[in-house]
Amino acid sequence: MENLTTLTGKYGDEGDQLLFKVLNSGDYLKGVDSAKLETRNSKQVTQDISEKGLRYDLTVPFARYVVMNRHEITFPFKRYQMQPVWRADRPQKGRYREFYQCDVDVVGTHSLICEAEIIMIILEAMQNLGVNDFTVKINHRGVLNGIAEAIGVSGKESDLFVAIDKLEKIGEEKVREELSGKDFSKDQLDKLFSILSINANNDKKLSSLSEMIAKASSGQKGLSDLNEVFQYLKHYEVSDSQVEFDISLARGLSYYTGCIFEVKINNVAIGSVSGGGRYDNLTGTFGDKDNLSGVGISFGVDRIYDAMEELKLFPADTQASSSVLVCHFDEESRNYGMMVLAKLRKAEIASEIYPDISKMKKQLDYANKKMIGHAVVIGADEINSGELTLKNMKSGEQEKLPLKTIIQKLKS
Amino acid sequence: MENLTTLTGKYGDEGDQLLFKVLNSGDYLKGVDSAKLETRNSKQVTQDISEKGLRYDLTVPFARYVVMNRHEITFPFKRYQMQPVWRADRPQKGRYREFYQCDVDVVGTHSLICEAEIIMIILEAMQNLGVNDFTVKINHRGVLNGIAEAIGVSGKESDLFVAIDKLEKIGEEKVREELSGKDFSKDQLDKLFSILSINANNDKKLSSLSEMIAKASSGQKGLSDLNEVFQYLKHYEVSDSQVEFDISLARGLSYYTGCIFEVKINNVAIGSVSGGGRYDNLTGTFGDKDNLSGVGISFGVDRIYDAMEELKLFPADTQASSSVLVCHFDEESRNYGMMVLAKLRKAEIASEIYPDISKMKKQLDYANKKMIGHAVVIGADEINSGELTLKNMKSGEQEKLPLKTIIQKLKS
Repeated sequence: MENLTTLTGKYGDEGDQLLFKVLNSGDYLKGVDSAKLETRNSKQVTQDISEKGLRYDLTVPFARYVVMNRHEITFPFKRYQMQPVWRADRPQKGRYREFYQCDVDVVGTHSLICEAEIIMIILEAMQNLGVNDFTVKINHRGVLNGIAEAIGVSGKESDLFVAIDKLEKIGEEKVREELSGKDFSKDQLDKLFSILSINANNDKKLSSLSEMIAKASSGQKGLSDLNEVFQYLKHYEVSDSQVEFDISLARGLSYYTGCIFEVKINNVAIGSVSGGGRYDNLTGTFGDKDNLSGVGISFGVDRIYDAMEELKLFPADTQASSSVLVCHFDEESRNYGMMVLAKLRKAEIASEIYPDISKMKKQLDYANKKMIGHAVVIGADEINSGELTLKNMKSGEQEKLPLKTIIQKLKS
Repeated sequence: MENLTTLTGKYGDEGDQLLFKVLNSGDYLKGVDSAKLETRNSKQVTQDISEKGLRYDLTVPFARYVVMNRHEITFPFKRYQMQPVWRADRPQKGRYREFYQCDVDVVGTHSLICEAEIIMIILEAMQNLGVNDFTVKINHRGVLNGIAEAIGVSGKESDLFVAIDKLEKIGEEKVREELSGKDFSKDQLDKLFSILSINANNDKKLSSLSEMIAKASSGQKGLSDLNEVFQYLKHYEVSDSQVEFDISLARGLSYYTGCIFEVKINNVAIGSVSGGGRYDNLTGTFGDKDNLSGVGISFGVDRIYDAMEELKLFPADTQASSSVLVCHFDEESRNYGMMVLAKLRKAEIASEIYPDISKMKKQLDYANKKMIGHAVVIGADEINSGELTLKNMKSGEQEKLPLKTIIQKLKS
């Protein structure tokens, strides 16, 4: 939860509309202006009855935190954060009202080593999750501004970015249509698409683009930043094919000023699973005079989960929590079972006991459904002999063994 | 976020008032009854402009989840859950508007083994956190009902429970005053305090109480439940002194029906850090005909954190994230440093590089402030000789070594 003043105006008009607002406590209507109530102006009344809102992302609250604590923080400041965020959107596949983000940011340095490290984090995170077929895209707001300048549409950057961000989704024809409607000339659009159609490896793309937007200074800064990031990645042994310089990548959020990133998992229709970039002015909006530069990435945990489920990347035993279920026939063997359970756990074998006195079939069904690999079955015979029945739930094999041997067997 | 219908009426009147309500999206005032708006009846208007609320705890949403998914769930169903909850309270020490709870529940069995296991979880969690001086209290709603019956105040249970819950805080005198005000007679109060003043170990308390409330059937059930839990704990080698049967423990939440638990960290004035109990009718309120019985415990993560901080239980290096900082003098040595960094990380040594080209003092200050144990310093000499300077940040000692030796040294 944040003060609404922290959140509003940071995510563009559309973002403001997607903020969940929390009703003030108590008799909140008491002080509201009668005229506002009578005209039923929801927007104006909101200002009087709601002071707090739910986080839309983790970056803006992080910037607020940095500014509030800037005298205690050691810069450059690195942090990660995993928390839910909310968007008042119509729920659909890949779009939730409440979802978890996992963010990594560095604030307080302009060094482009941070951009390279963020790409390293993306690559390592995806590989550790077992996601091997994914695309990391990088671009730079400066390059986009340079293109706008080079094709002669300075001042209309935001129309341009919104349109080309949809290029992959809706195709060249529709993007041309949309921009024609915003008074882009045919000549400007031809120039734009000749730039966007450059098809080459990253180094060649950089040099071709450098010629095409030679006179645009913000573009040159963008290209030199990107070149520097690619050089750093070589020190980390990241190959050119692992990160794609995509001139049409724009990212919607308004606060980015430098490099921007996006990650897609291939062959899953769920949109981007991660995105981020550099923001130079975000702490400034909270009254920070130093205007600390930061760069970060946000992983959409729920989308990654959905994609992994679709790709069947979760191991079959993801749901299995215990390795052993202690089963029993009556009160006496259940009591004995509790002592067995205590010893299994002491040996760090994840174990549980069936809590009720029930038919053996019901207990073994429970073990099967919960993918518990072994059952230790205890009855009068077992208590007398001191040899317990160990049942392998997969193979169905069972043998009678002393508890010590069972523990050794399960540990190995 | 939950539907308000899920949350309201589950936590008592006070709880309902502490629910944060989320404003409906869009033009929410459109359909609101004019009369309601004109009379400015905040409570009535809320029903029209807010459908969703923020979780007050994790138990009620969990019960809602169980009922919604009861056909897919294997019972007895065990789950843990860590998530933020919200209460529209005045913030103060130990009382937050937004805080994390960590819950453990078992649903679908009446077995009192679950109560014993929950106590095991409490003991193990506290010990693993390094909190050694804490008190686990247990009581039973049946015992409380039995006391009410035995002293002749049946039907006034909730007044009784609310009052005795405050006994430790406000003392006998004030509790007597409060209950006198609710028409409890002197004789009833004398009986009450003769029961509450039983001072003995758990077994003796159980037997004394059994005599004193002999005719109260709900009380006898409660005492026999508690006795069974104590017997189970013996199988797990939990001693009598680790769990205290506290007759005055009442717990505010209205949904408990059986055993109730509470944990306090001694010598820290922060209230209880954990509480829970058995609820027999919670899924029933969501239309579940089977009315599954459940039992659970909730840890207040923020309070435990505060207490641990007050008791200085966090190790000094809790904040340290990296073991090594790679330092450098210029662009060339920074580039070389990135390759060194990659090798340190490959050897699983948590390392970072100072991202900017800055004075060595600034880089070493950063290492000190971030409690990074070692610096690897790289300059022209180091690049030429291949021997890097390893500086121990605590002792100040430094030596020149090949990277391989540094890695071996740091790993051992």
